[in-house]
Amino acid sequence: MRLSLLCTLGIYFIVLCAAEEGLEFPNFDGRDRVLDINERSYKKALRKFDLLCLFYHEPVPANKGLQKRFQMTELVLELTAQVLENKNIGFGMVDAQKDAKVAKKLGLEEVGSLYIFKDDRIIEFDGELSADTLVEFLLDVLEDPVEIINNAMELRAFERIEEDIRLIGYFKGEDLYYKAFQEASERFQPYIKFFATFDKSVAKHLSLKMNEVNFYEPFMEEPVVLPGRPLSETDIVDFVNQHRRATLRKLRAENMFETWEDDMDGIHIVAFAEEEDPDGYELLEILKDVARDNTNNPDLSIVWIDPDDFPLLTTYWEKTFKLDLFRPQIGVVNVTDADSVWLDMSNDEDLPTAEELEDWIEDVLSGRVNTEDDDDDDLEDDREDFEEDLTEYGDENLDRDDDLYD
Amino acid sequence: MRLSLLCTLGIYFIVLCAAEEGLEFPNFDGRDRVLDINERSYKKALRKFDLLCLFYHEPVPANKGLQKRFQMTELVLELTAQVLENKNIGFGMVDAQKDAKVAKKLGLEEVGSLYIFKDDRIIEFDGELSADTLVEFLLDVLEDPVEIINNAMELRAFERIEEDIRLIGYFKGEDLYYKAFQEASERFQPYIKFFATFDKSVAKHLSLKMNEVNFYEPFMEEPVVLPGRPLSETDIVDFVNQHRRATLRKLRAENMFETWEDDMDGIHIVAFAEEEDPDGYELLEILKDVARDNTNNPDLSIVWIDPDDFPLLTTYWEKTFKLDLFRPQIGVVNVTDADSVWLDMSNDEDLPTAEELEDWIEDVLSGRVNTEDDDDDDLEDDREDFEEDLTEYGDENLDRDDDLYD
Repeated sequence: MRLSLLCTLGIYFIVLCAAEEGLEFPNFDGRDRVLDINERSYKKALRKFDLLCLFYHEPVPANKGLQKRFQMTELVLELTAQVLENKNIGFGMVDAQKDAKVAKKLGLEEVGSLYIFKDDRIIEFDGELSADTLVEFLLDVLEDPVEIINNAMELRAFERIEEDIRLIGYFKGEDLYYKAFQEASERFQPYIKFFATFDKSVAKHLSLKMNEVNFYEPFMEEPVVLPGRPLSETDIVDFVNQHRRATLRKLRAENMFETWEDDMDGIHIVAFAEEEDPDGYELLEILKDVARDNTNNPDLSIVWIDPDDFPLLTTYWEKTFKLDLFRPQIGVVNVTDADSVWLDMSNDEDLPTAEELEDWIEDVLSGRVNTEDDDDDDLEDDREDFEEDLTEYGDENLDRDDDLYD
Repeated sequence: MRLSLLCTLGIYFIVLCAAEEGLEFPNFDGRDRVLDINERSYKKALRKFDLLCLFYHEPVPANKGLQKRFQMTELVLELTAQVLENKNIGFGMVDAQKDAKVAKKLGLEEVGSLYIFKDDRIIEFDGELSADTLVEFLLDVLEDPVEIINNAMELRAFERIEEDIRLIGYFKGEDLYYKAFQEASERFQPYIKFFATFDKSVAKHLSLKMNEVNFYEPFMEEPVVLPGRPLSETDIVDFVNQHRRATLRKLRAENMFETWEDDMDGIHIVAFAEEEDPDGYELLEILKDVARDNTNNPDLSIVWIDPDDFPLLTTYWEKTFKLDLFRPQIGVVNVTDADSVWLDMSNDEDLPTAEELEDWIEDVLSGRVNTEDDDDDDLEDDREDFEEDLTEYGDENLDRDDDLYD
C-alpha cells in the first residue's frame, strides 16, 4: 500500500500524559499491513487468515479532496491492522474497477462497504469507519457466536440486556440441535446475540422446554417462542430474518448506515434521548411502553438515538433538524432530504404520555403529520439561518408545528 | 494557526454511505478556528466566549515525529472547534515557553493538559484527547451543573446511575442553601453529578430532610448523609474532596489519565470486565459486593476497566499484561513499569467468590501478592515474546501465579 502522505502524519490520538505506564494509545508505526488484493493474492489471503477484512472501494479518485478521504480510510485500516496484529486478521483493498473480477468472485456488492470473511461466511460492516468502532466490531466477530448461560448470575446478565435482539435456546448439550442453533448464530454474528443453556434451572426460569428457542425483541419484556421444536438452522434463520426490524431500535455506530437505510417508506420516526439524563430516561421509558403496545404493527419502527453515543454528530443534528439536543426530542425525518417535523415538548415538565405519543405516531403513520406541510416556511428558515440562535430557533420551529394539530 | 500540512489532509472519519441524509460525520473544513493565545489576546478571549479551552503545550519540537503528534493535537482541537462552532466556545494554544507569563497569569500548571475556563473557574481535562471524547466533555460542561429531579420517573433515572459519584439535595426552592449547593456543584462539573429536588415525595423516598444532602459513592446502595444542615459551599466541597476516591471506580475516557495517576502506593488493583458479557457481569457483581464490604477501607480502590470502552487499548493491555481479555481478569499493576500479577481464573466456571476475592485483595494490600515476585521469569518471558500465542501465554502466566499462594 502506498502511504507516502500518511506516513508523514503519524496518527490522530495523543496521550496527554505518559508519565505512568499502562495506558498507551497506539501510534501508527508506518508499517504497511493492508494488502493489495488481486486475482493472484486473494485465495492465499483467504487461506492465511482467520478473518479477512476487505474494503471494496471506487477507483482512487483524481480529485484531491476525495483522495485525502481515501487515504484516511487506508489509515483507519492500517491502524486497525496494527492494533489487531496478533489476532491473525488480514486486511485488504479491492478496487471496484481494477479488481472487478475478484470482487465478483468474492461476492462483494456495495462499493464503499467493508466485507469480513470468516470461514465460509461474509459479514458486511456498514458502520462508522473509525478505528475504535472497527476494532471493537472485529473483536466481537472473533468471539464464540453462542454464549453459554451456566448459572443464576449469568442469567441475570442475560436478562439485563435490553437493546439487542437476542435468542436463547435450551439444549441437552452440544448435540445436533445445538449445532443447528450455532450454525444459525453464525449467520447473524455479531449483530444479533445468541445464547444457550444446558442447565435445567436456567431453562425453567425462562420457561424454556428442551430444544426450544426464545426470541427477544429489543425492549420487550416477554420473548416470542420460535414455532416448532427441534428447530433446523433454516427455521431459525428464517424466523430471525422475518423479525429483525424491531419496533424500537437503537442507533449504533457499528451498523448505523444499515439502520438508516432501512427506512419505512422514506421516513424514520426518530427519538433523541440521553439515557443518563433524567428527562431522556423518562422519554425512553414512554417509548418502550409505546413499542410494547405496538410490537405487532409492522409499519412502526422508531429509531432511538442516544446523543451521547455520537458526540460528533450532535451539533450537525441540531443544525439539520433545528433542534435543541440538550433535551429529548421525537420527530419524523425524511431520509432523502433530511426534512423533519418534531413533536412540541418545549415545556420541560411536560413530556407526552404514552397515549399522547401513540396518537401522534398514528398521525405520522396516517400521513396527517408529515415533513412536507411546513415546506413553505423552509425558504424563510434558510434566510434566517445566518443569524440563528440554535436553541431559540428549535423552540420557534417546534411552536410552528402546533399548526399541524389544529 | 498554521495548518499547512493538516489542511492537506482532511479528517479521519469517512462516511461509507451517504446516499441518504441525516448521518453526515463532519469533515474538517480547513478553516482555522484555534487561536494563538498571548499576552495581547488572552483577556479578550476570556471575555468573548462562554467557555475557553486552552491547550497548554511544550514548545513545538524540532523532532519530526513529535511535530506530527503536535499537529494531530491541533487537528483534534480544530475539528472540535468546528463541530462546536455554534456553542460560543473558544479554543487556543498556550506555548509553555513563549507564553510563560500568560500561562502563569492563567494558572496553567501541567504541560500537556487542556484547561477549560468557565466563568471564574478552571476545569482540567486529563482524558483521551480525541475529538469525540472532547466534544462530549465540553457539551457536558455547557449543561446546568445541577439537574432537578421532579417526579417518580426521573427519580428512577437517578437511582439507576451507579458508576458516577453523585450528590442529591432537598431544598425548598432556589434559595440560599440551594445556591450554596449549586456553587459547590460548579467546582466538580462535569466529573461529579449534582442533583436536587424541591419535591416532598421525591425527598421522602430518598429519606432526605429539608436542606440535607446525600452523597452516593459509585456502586454503593446506601448513600452517606453529609453532616450538618444547612450546608455551606465549603462544607460540601470539603466533603466531596475527602470522599472522592471510590472503593470501586470505573476508568473513563474523559479522565482516564487522572484516575491512573491517582494510584495507591504505586499500584492499582485492576479488574477487566465487560459488563455486557455474562462472565464479565458476574465478576463485576462480585467486585461490587467486595467494594460494599470494604467501603471504609481507605487503602482500597479498585479500577474497573470495561474493555468495550477502549477498543484501541485492548490488545495493548493483552500484550503488556500477558492476558486474555476475552475473559474477565483481576490483578495488581505497578504503574511505574506496568509489571503485573493476575489472579488465576483460568477455569471459566470458576470465578472467585466475594470472600475469596477479599482474601486475595488482603494479600495484595499486605504485600504477600505483589508484582515483583515473578520478575525472574520476566527475562524468559521477553525472549519467548516473539513466538507468543497471547491466549495460551496468558494462561501459562496465570498458572505460574499459583506459586504465590503456596
